[in-house]
Amino acid sequence: MKPAVVLVSGGLDSATVLAIAQQSFDCQPLTFDYGQRHAIELQAAQRVCAQLGARAPRLVKLDLRDIGGSALTADIDVPKGGPGDGIPVTYVPARNTLFLSYALALAETLGATDMFIGVNAVDYSGYPDCRPEFIHAFESLANLATKLGVEGARFRVHAPLLALTKADIIRRGVALGVDYSLTHSCYDPVDDRACGHCDSCVIRRQGFLMAAIPDPTRYVHRP
Amino acid sequence: MKPAVVLVSGGLDSATVLAIAQQSFDCQPLTFDYGQRHAIELQAAQRVCAQLGARAPRLVKLDLRDIGGSALTADIDVPKGGPGDGIPVTYVPARNTLFLSYALALAETLGATDMFIGVNAVDYSGYPDCRPEFIHAFESLANLATKLGVEGARFRVHAPLLALTKADIIRRGVALGVDYSLTHSCYDPVDDRACGHCDSCVIRRQGFLMAAIPDPTRYVHRP
Repeated sequence: MKPAVVLVSGGLDSATVLAIAQQSFDCQPLTFDYGQRHAIELQAAQRVCAQLGARAPRLVKLDLRDIGGSALTADIDVPKGGPGDGIPVTYVPARNTLFLSYALALAETLGATDMFIGVNAVDYSGYPDCRPEFIHAFESLANLATKLGVEGARFRVHAPLLALTKADIIRRGVALGVDYSLTHSCYDPVDDRACGHCDSCVIRRQGFLMAAIPDPTRYVHRP
Repeated sequence: MKPAVVLVSGGLDSATVLAIAQQSFDCQPLTFDYGQRHAIELQAAQRVCAQLGARAPRLVKLDLRDIGGSALTADIDVPKGGPGDGIPVTYVPARNTLFLSYALALAETLGATDMFIGVNAVDYSGYPDCRPEFIHAFESLANLATKLGVEGARFRVHAPLLALTKADIIRRGVALGVDYSLTHSCYDPVDDRACGHCDSCVIRRQGFLMAAIPDPTRYVHRP
């Protein structure tokens, strides 16, 4: 099977992407410690890779706390009460650009031209770097930026969740054997339990409800 | 003056770029510790910023040793004997993509839409991510990747050395008061002296010769 680099966060979406990618590629998961508040995400990423029979994830430390500018990396309160309009304060400047740049560096080192990222329809309503036009612009950049690209290879950024709702994603993942109890989505967990109130918890919970699949998440407060 | 993020490596090119950018922008230098073999470059970056009256550089640690794939970050011998044909083994996969991605993250955090990078004509004969088409592709990506871009801002990646020879760059920098004795270009230094034989030393030395400006570099071996 061809090699591919798969961005894995420990969340529900990237676990599903990994399960999809594993069907057709020899996957190298890549995960980041970007100064996020909770190491729970990193542990979740390792558990997800193991459960799906993938290689252990490569871990790259990112210094985003030095750069700041987001509720996920600086001292800004995580919003509660469900998603609103516009770009959320949990937006991290250039995050997916950075993630894909590292994926590209690792891909070229491994001789891979395929990368997977778990952006989806729910996300791209709010985040600029979750839109299809961003993904396509990154593919164009990758072809120009690299030795492999100059030699004629064509990079592909697979975003298999792009057009799926959260319920679709969950149904797809369950069909592929993903154990979502191992995944972590909450922006503001207490111990290893999800807060139940942040945008991410609300979207996740609604996804399970719409998919009519029991939600295995351990919440502090039932949303 | 408008804010700008300037990528500074401690080398001759980026010192010149900083001097150029300082004329028209309120510059925030950004430098990287990417697992390169020598901390000399980082010290040079700090000295260059101080000498040019710029802010102290923001330092971001990059984990490229985990990714490998280049003579600058993995255990591959640095080539000697002058530049050859094709892409050199000192090429670091996706390096400028990563550098510009961090510059973009910092720029957006500071409310800046201008970034400066010291790629030049000599470099882009060998490195894919030193070509004008790469720079333009990154600008397009930045406009799509960010909240500022979605709101209508237009990012600009300034590469003022792109069409200049090394001699032109040196003449320009000397005219702007750059003290090149503070800069460091060598891929393989001994203590704080340049090896005199690596591609970078050879190109630098030829630049001073062609510019008819005395070379202040301290070499182990005169090239």
